[in-house]
Amino acid sequence: MRIAELSRRSGVSAPTIKFYVREGLLPAGERTSHNQVRYSDTHLHRLRLVRALIDVGGLSIAATKAALAEIETPGRPLHGVLGVVHRSLAREHPALPEEQLAAAQRDIDQLAQRRGWRLTGESPALRNAVDALATMRQLGLDDLAGILDEYAAAAEQIAAAELDLTVQRAQQGDDVLAEKTAIGIVVGGALVLSLLGLAQEDASARRFPPPAPPGAPSGTPR
Amino acid sequence: MRIAELSRRSGVSAPTIKFYVREGLLPAGERTSHNQVRYSDTHLHRLRLVRALIDVGGLSIAATKAALAEIETPGRPLHGVLGVVHRSLAREHPALPEEQLAAAQRDIDQLAQRRGWRLTGESPALRNAVDALATMRQLGLDDLAGILDEYAAAAEQIAAAELDLTVQRAQQGDDVLAEKTAIGIVVGGALVLSLLGLAQEDASARRFPPPAPPGAPSGTPR
Repeated sequence: MRIAELSRRSGVSAPTIKFYVREGLLPAGERTSHNQVRYSDTHLHRLRLVRALIDVGGLSIAATKAALAEIETPGRPLHGVLGVVHRSLAREHPALPEEQLAAAQRDIDQLAQRRGWRLTGESPALRNAVDALATMRQLGLDDLAGILDEYAAAAEQIAAAELDLTVQRAQQGDDVLAEKTAIGIVVGGALVLSLLGLAQEDASARRFPPPAPPGAPSGTPR
Repeated sequence: MRIAELSRRSGVSAPTIKFYVREGLLPAGERTSHNQVRYSDTHLHRLRLVRALIDVGGLSIAATKAALAEIETPGRPLHGVLGVVHRSLAREHPALPEEQLAAAQRDIDQLAQRRGWRLTGESPALRNAVDALATMRQLGLDDLAGILDEYAAAAEQIAAAELDLTVQRAQQGDDVLAEKTAIGIVVGGALVLSLLGLAQEDASARRFPPPAPPGAPSGTPR
């Protein structure tokens, strides 16, 4: 297909497609004549993957490139794919006093120990967790340390369900397992946050029901 | 304190502090003489709050401003704070065919119905969830629909634990309840994602143990 059709089918503008080619996120099309470049379904799929990582997952161009390189290296163990994709999710570190960071690090270490988590200590997820906890404490949310295990238990349930899917895919001989694992982590994270938003809305609506409109009889079912 | 001390204590550079004042994220300091501006502990706290929302929560300047305005309007019901903070977390929508979006919308609607969630349908979390699910399907992760309830159940547990904290804070007469609720949602989301990353690392390490280094005796405890 030509770039116009690729653009129509992917929803990505032609200039953005060219930008992705220049940035190395998308292989160049095949030049068939002086003024014509042809793209295949492989390009379409890759474009969808790039937009998923960037738009839905919130990854940067550089992080997307790193994740794609890892996915495409044949024979990479899945655990390695996980590591690279996690590294692509690293965040900026807030400026926090050393002693507050050290205290949060101790709490996360103890949490990992209580949960029996096998961690290498190299994942940016560890630093992100420490940053988030220290930030919450600094802003007076000390009580949050009391529900760390609730957060962790919920995270374990999701991770276990996701891994079951990965194992099923591997048993079925899925040939794009690394790609699906990466999408599962990045877009799955966005799904988790959005469902958490909905669950928060529900929990809040139950506990703090909005006031009835003026004149409405009390006890009206909502 | 002067701007140099505010910068040192907050870890935010003086030019960035001035930028935040111009953008309306931070009230101006008090001008005490021709060349001197004084800042208070209130400024320091506000600066930490801004950095938490931007650095840890990943909010934009505009979204941070909207969230702060909501937090500071006296008498806003907590449920309203939740709505505004959720709106600040809206993401860019990926280009997806209408019928794929409609199918994902049906699945999320049915999920909400199964879970008994009370939703207004106005939250961007709803659209974010639909986008994430449709994106995953488009990239071949159809099997994911089978674990939507696992994701939802985990989200409910977290939301319930968070709301318990909010209720306890309200009972203790916490005077910055709206602020803490907003931080809890934004920074709490970052904490959830990082703990999910750690749980994924643990689950993967258990199921796909890395190969033993060459020459290592088999069965070596790790």
